[in-house]
Amino acid sequence: MMTMPMTEHGTTPSATSLSQSRVAVVGLGLMGGSLAAALRRTHRCAEVLGVARSEGSIRTALQRGWIDWGTLDLQQGVSEADIIILATPVRTIIRLIGQIGPWLKRGCLVMDMGSTKRRIMSAMEGLPAAAEPVGGHPMCGKESSGLEAAEANLYQGAVFVLTPLARTSSVALGLARHLVQAVGARPLVLEAARHDRLVAAVSHLPYCAASALVATAEGIAAEDELVWELAASGFRDTSRLAASDSDMMRDIVLTNAEAILQVLHRYRGQIDRWIAALETEDSSRLEAMMQEVSSRRRALYRSHRHWR
Amino acid sequence: MMTMPMTEHGTTPSATSLSQSRVAVVGLGLMGGSLAAALRRTHRCAEVLGVARSEGSIRTALQRGWIDWGTLDLQQGVSEADIIILATPVRTIIRLIGQIGPWLKRGCLVMDMGSTKRRIMSAMEGLPAAAEPVGGHPMCGKESSGLEAAEANLYQGAVFVLTPLARTSSVALGLARHLVQAVGARPLVLEAARHDRLVAAVSHLPYCAASALVATAEGIAAEDELVWELAASGFRDTSRLAASDSDMMRDIVLTNAEAILQVLHRYRGQIDRWIAALETEDSSRLEAMMQEVSSRRRALYRSHRHWR
Repeated sequence: MMTMPMTEHGTTPSATSLSQSRVAVVGLGLMGGSLAAALRRTHRCAEVLGVARSEGSIRTALQRGWIDWGTLDLQQGVSEADIIILATPVRTIIRLIGQIGPWLKRGCLVMDMGSTKRRIMSAMEGLPAAAEPVGGHPMCGKESSGLEAAEANLYQGAVFVLTPLARTSSVALGLARHLVQAVGARPLVLEAARHDRLVAAVSHLPYCAASALVATAEGIAAEDELVWELAASGFRDTSRLAASDSDMMRDIVLTNAEAILQVLHRYRGQIDRWIAALETEDSSRLEAMMQEVSSRRRALYRSHRHWR
Repeated sequence: MMTMPMTEHGTTPSATSLSQSRVAVVGLGLMGGSLAAALRRTHRCAEVLGVARSEGSIRTALQRGWIDWGTLDLQQGVSEADIIILATPVRTIIRLIGQIGPWLKRGCLVMDMGSTKRRIMSAMEGLPAAAEPVGGHPMCGKESSGLEAAEANLYQGAVFVLTPLARTSSVALGLARHLVQAVGARPLVLEAARHDRLVAAVSHLPYCAASALVATAEGIAAEDELVWELAASGFRDTSRLAASDSDMMRDIVLTNAEAILQVLHRYRGQIDRWIAALETEDSSRLEAMMQEVSSRRRALYRSHRHWR
């Protein structure tokens, strides 16, 4: 059994090591299902229990050996857990945080896997003092969503952001790190507001750009349907994120609107640079823009072995 | 041997069937190298000869069995061919069309594989009356460029646009179709201006959007370098086209500026819709935008089996 350093702050997580912990995964979709699968496969925690809205999801997760047991009853699932992972869309996470407080075991680690962190961490401030809140956001995903798309390897090699509160004990943060490492991911501790600014640029802006591209092409298609015949891999890849689950994305966009607006304004400035260079037929300027961006993108792709 | 219908217009291609034709591929990069490889593998033409600027490319193409013979001498290569395929960046294609006229065999089919067609077809109007011009543009590609990236399967299943001139005989167009089918692609005859409008939307706009995304993220990275640690598959795919060869893209953008400007203005309008919806925190409008685009993108992807 691994021992963990004791916290200096008084509260002690209800199970100080991952191997002694009962982990409740609330929400058995792509992210929650994959986390349960990864935890169960490595046998690094005492028990994995699933909380879902449908019996079908629990049955499927049980059949695949991804959970030890499951329940439709949030209170039951949460009150027996040492570690709770909220794996639903962001606004549901915020709602659940408001509900679960009274049911938590003393020292229970409350984590989530929402894609924005500032609003979620404000909600976590309201948890009882005996709870240990740590926000989480794994930087990985898939085009398809739902339990059917889940897989134990999803987190392998991915960066997994952790956003503790000031009140979170070092023992609890250590336990969160162990859990992240147990599923093959790389923990990265960040302040919630900084996380939200950065993902606005590299995750939410690409989604908006992809959606605007599909909407533009759709407008052209209304005039000439043949356009889809000419769409090749470039269009497919650039537009891929537009197919993201719209419930999930609505919550993300609404809980990070300020940071997204800032990068959208900058992005529009870059589109305006393109328009200006083309309107003036400024070939040397165009050439400089293209070379700079091309070499930057190539260097990024070469140097980041962990791109997923 | 396959026989071809005779033309009604008087000129006859110098070899009326593909199997009797000597094909000269001018430019042994990704597209030219792959075309030579595909033609040679299927034994559907009499001979494949390569014209390149470097002895290294010819040596490599010979070693791989992708050409029967090669030359650095454009005049020599062109004057012995029944079919010429210009496979260089667009502005080089236009320059080559201006040079090769005096050297062409009577009835020689002159094709190209440039990504824009209007300017190239204007240049082809200047070819001698005995030449048979047919523009071409295969809707496929790869992130990497050059002969090293070439492969005989590149054209398999891809749409291959053909843009004949009014003067082009039906025999010549038939021969071009056969060549396209021989490399596994699907011919699609289109008017050059229509081609350029459509590819502006589904090929050149995605490139501009990807480049603007990399430039925006680069600006954020100047303030907080950690941004690249959080870039996952969404950023990677949406930005992929920004790594395209900038020499090739410069020629494309400069020869299709008008059509690209039109779609860039529409695209900026879509970005403005995002900004307006986020600024007013209009969640029902955001939800409608996201659902519409998501279901459109999913339907497209499902219904187009030939996406590459």
